[in-house]
Parts: sequence; structure tokens; C-alpha cells
Amino acid sequence: MSAPGRPLGEFELIERFFKRRGRTAAPATRPAGRAVALGIGDDCALLTPDAGMQLAISTDMLVEGRHFLPTVPPRRLGHKALAVNLSDLAACGAEPLGFTLALALPRADPAFLEPFAAGLFALADEHGVELIGGDTTAGPLNISVTVLGQVPAGGALLRRGARAGDDLWVSGQLGDARLALEVFRGNVALGAAEFEAARLAMECPQPRVALGRALRGLASAAIDLSDGLVGDLGHVLAASNVGAVIDADALPRSAVLAAQAPALQRQCVLAGGDDYELLFTAPPQHRAAVEAAGRLVGVAVTRFGRIDAAAGLQVHDAGGRAVEMDWRGFDHFAA
Amino acid sequence: MSAPGRPLGEFELIERFFKRRGRTAAPATRPAGRAVALGIGDDCALLTPDAGMQLAISTDMLVEGRHFLPTVPPRRLGHKALAVNLSDLAACGAEPLGFTLALALPRADPAFLEPFAAGLFALADEHGVELIGGDTTAGPLNISVTVLGQVPAGGALLRRGARAGDDLWVSGQLGDARLALEVFRGNVALGAAEFEAARLAMECPQPRVALGRALRGLASAAIDLSDGLVGDLGHVLAASNVGAVIDADALPRSAVLAAQAPALQRQCVLAGGDDYELLFTAPPQHRAAVEAAGRLVGVAVTRFGRIDAAAGLQVHDAGGRAVEMDWRGFDHFAA
Repeated sequence: MSAPGRPLGEFELIERFFKRRGRTAAPATRPAGRAVALGIGDDCALLTPDAGMQLAISTDMLVEGRHFLPTVPPRRLGHKALAVNLSDLAACGAEPLGFTLALALPRADPAFLEPFAAGLFALADEHGVELIGGDTTAGPLNISVTVLGQVPAGGALLRRGARAGDDLWVSGQLGDARLALEVFRGNVALGAAEFEAARLAMECPQPRVALGRALRGLASAAIDLSDGLVGDLGHVLAASNVGAVIDADALPRSAVLAAQAPALQRQCVLAGGDDYELLFTAPPQHRAAVEAAGRLVGVAVTRFGRIDAAAGLQVHDAGGRAVEMDWRGFDHFAA
Repeated sequence: MSAPGRPLGEFELIERFFKRRGRTAAPATRPAGRAVALGIGDDCALLTPDAGMQLAISTDMLVEGRHFLPTVPPRRLGHKALAVNLSDLAACGAEPLGFTLALALPRADPAFLEPFAAGLFALADEHGVELIGGDTTAGPLNISVTVLGQVPAGGALLRRGARAGDDLWVSGQLGDARLALEVFRGNVALGAAEFEAARLAMECPQPRVALGRALRGLASAAIDLSDGLVGDLGHVLAASNVGAVIDADALPRSAVLAAQAPALQRQCVLAGGDDYELLFTAPPQHRAAVEAAGRLVGVAVTRFGRIDAAAGLQVHDAGGRAVEMDWRGFDHFAA
């Protein structure tokens, strides 16, 4: 513990907030640290993946004003910093093993760090994943997480596997995160309960890790939705060298969003960003199995279109009329 | 390529500066990408470590003003961002496989990004290591690298293996980086050639990857020197539950540093920071083998003390007189 008034040092900060000893939490998905041969406290962490497994690795960096607002409760920020990374593992169908955290902080403030670490570790425990290393430094607030998982060699879900005739699916509901952002921006007004629900979607996304694993062998391609459905679908189409036809009205949305003006709904579900749901493709013969996988893990899955051999994306409404809008996804430099 | 005057987008930035196609560089240490099953461009990268190997992982975050000065040439900054991470792998005796880069930039400026990427990839090629993923965002300049390597299961060099009677060794020369920093701070004046030599040590550290691998089976403990010798040695002593006796005058230094005042020399070699040399321990019966390992990889290794069963660190000079100073290592929050 630091003396009153004395700034926390880097090592002390790690010891106090990020090094966990003798914890007894029982993770849901795997014995904690089974794959982690050595965690925090040496020059490197050591991981022992299971035989026949490939390592899946992803990195996301979160910056204030770009990925979260200054108003976010630190507990939710801790959750989100890990959630957006676990979401990348989910999109590959990988089983999470561990993660590293690099953190730049204007100052070592326990009022921020305690809830931040609590939110981070609550989600980590839920997924049986361990903090295996990291770095802390003084600087403008910046959170960089690298997550490591394992997937059977050759079994990862990739963006490039979509084939003409495949169904297009999406998990959960889309657009609430963008709806909350528009409230923060002053462009939309919501009742308190509706706003809190939308805000929870924005600040506490639930990574679809169990669904991703359940989709191995069923889905032909997958991606997690971070920049908006149209933009992220575009990555799948480009990587797979195919096109798609989608029904904008079939995209799943909350009752709160469904009560908004149609144009706002479309913008939120088609190009909202920050959804962290899985978009995936699967051959039609797997329809029943995909629905069973969703039921098994307790996540709704909705079919909203199909993959076409011809390049390009056609968006229509429930009546078959073409939908026109500015499809540009969220881009961190050009937006 | 971007149209004149239009800001670069995130995807374009990655495509233009960080995605490499059809390159023909021949890495020194391993066929490029042998372990990398999937690199940049999907939700995750996929690595296939060799059979019987553990993954070694380390993360370091670099912030302007803390880890580098605004005056650093971008090419050297690209080099250093990877070098300090490879140095952690070196300290474990691991073979580098790949790395991720998360980059926050105030703006997407080719005059910065081109030389930054050139310095980064030059060092990556030297070590046969591939950029496998990452993230770019707008924000205050922040560089976070996570490096992945492999080491035979159970064969990693750790901090906790030092035993009473072991020799204490260090690679290369110490203190030049701190000397250069003191010049930048206006506390020391050097001639142009001397300053450039010291500055090169600060801005272009050479990670001792080959030495770390050569020390597997010889060294009992190892750490890389980032915060200053006394502070980093303290981590080894604490982890191994031992003490040490060291000779401050035996610590290797450049001719430039050796020409400075004795008190400045001691501060630079004992508590300078940013050395990125390996400090390691080895039983006395391995002396000849350690020296042979140093010769084999072309890196000087110097013996400067021994491990003691009694806790604590005793520092003396060549004449056996106790050396007193403020031993505090560099701490990013308390310094």
C-alpha cells in the first residue's frame, strides 16, 4: 500500500491492482491457468497450448474520445477493453487462454484503477482467461490489450471462406451502441431506462466466445462487428471474392431501437459500429445446426441475407425495395 | 495511395505502411513466417509453434517523453519499439516468431510512418520475425508492441533461478543511453562524435536475442536491463530469494563514458536505464562456456559479481570500498 499522498509507483501499481494471488474464482469455461505456465512477474509469460492447437492472437487499442467517452464508468471500461479483444477470438472460433494489458495513465488513481481492474477481471473470470503480462506507464490514457487463444490447427473461422449460396447470419441485436452514442452527441433523446439499456450495449458488449466455438465446422466465414455491419461485411466479401444480398429490415434490433425513426434505425443497424456481435456465413444445409448452436449457448442468431457469386452488396428492405444510404463504415482517421 | 490533401484512412494506413507483400528479404535466423500460419488481415493471426515448445509473450508500451524524446528520428523509434520487446524474449532465451503493433497517432503522416515502418521492419527482418497483427487509431502518440516467441518447454531463462555462488554477468556495455539522456537534459556536454555514439545506444538498442538463446542451459537466471542495473538486479534477487556482491568498477562501459567524471559513470552504469543488455547468473563451472557463447554470437560478456545466500545487495569498487548512492531505479510513476 502506498503512503498517503505519495504517488503510486509502477511496480506497486501492478502488485496492487493487477497481480492476483490465491484467488478462488471458478471460471466457467476452463481451469484457470491450465495453459499458463508462467504469468505476470518475469520478462515474458509462458503459455503451453494443447497439442494440435494453433495460437490465435489479436490486439486492440482503446483511446479516449475514439473508443470510449470520458463519461464511461471505469468498471465498464475495464470490461470493454477485454471484451473487444475476446470478440476477435470469438470471430475465429478460438478458446481464450490469456491476455496482456499495456496501460498508459495520466496518474495512478485508485478511484479509477480499482473499478477498472474489477471490470476487467470479472469478464476475464467469466471466460477463464488470465492476465499474463503487461506494462504500465504515465501518459495520456491509452489501453492496449493483446489476447491469446487456441484453435484446432486448420479449424479457425476466417473471413475468406464465404461461398455463393451461403446464408448470412448475425448474432444478438445491432445498433444499440450507436443509438446511445447519438444520445451522448445530443442528436437523439431517450427515456432514462431506454438510454441505460442502450448505454449498456455500448459500454458493456458481451463477446460471443461460446457462439464462435460452437460455429466451428458450421460457419464458412466469420467476423466480429466493430466498425458497422456494412463495412465489416465488406471485409468478408472482399476476402472471399463474393458479393451479397441483404434485407435491412431483417437485421435484429432491440425494442428501444425499433421505436425510433426508420432512417435512424437503418443507420444504427447497418453502419452503427461497436456492436461486437458475430457476422457469419454458413451453407444452407447447416441452418438447423446453426440455430441449435445459438440455442445451446443462449445467443439469438438471425438470418438476414445470402452470399452471391457476383461482386457487390445489394441492400433491400422487407418489401424488396433497394435501400440507399451512405455506407461508409467508421474509420479512425478519415471519419 | 491517398489523393493529395485527403487524410489517410485506417485501412489504407495499414495497407500502405504495414502490410508487406512478396518481400524477398532473407531473415538471418529462420525462414520468415514458418510459424505464422496467418498474418495481418483477419480478426486474429494464427501461429503454429514447433512441437514441444512453449510460447513466450511480452508487451511494452512506449510513450513520448517517457520512453523516447520528441527529437528521436522516426526510423530509430520504429527500431526501438520492437527492440525493447525482443529484449524481453532474449532475456527468456526465446526464439522470436512474430509481433503485434498497436499504434495511436495524432495524424497519419507519411513523413513519420515511412521511416518508422522502415526501422521497425529492418530489425524484424534481422531477427526473422513477422508483424502478424495490430491496430491503428488516432490519439496521442503511443506505441504498444506485443512480441511472441518460442522456447523449449521448461527451458526458459527466468528471474528466479539464481543460486548462492553463481557468477553475475552482463552483456555489452552499460550507461551510454543514460549519458545521452543527460546531454539532452543539458546536464552533460559531449563532442559531436561522442554524443552521436551515446545517442545511438539510447535510440537504437540491440536486443541480445542470439545471446539469450546461447545461454539456455548455461545461465541460471536472466533479466533484460531496462530500468537500470541495480533495480533490475533487485528483481532477480527478490525472485530468487538471494543477495549479491558486485564490483561497480567491473561494469563494462564505453570509452566515451569512461572519460566522464567517476560519479556520473557510476550513476550511468548502475542506475542508468534503457541499456537493453542481458544481466544473468551462471554457476562458476560454466564460466568458459559462457565466454564461448559470447564469442560465438559476437557480444561481450563481463563478470562483475556473485550471488550470495544472504539477502541484500553490496556494491563495492575495485579497491573493495563500499559504494553509496541513491539506488532507486527508474519508475514511470514515482520518478
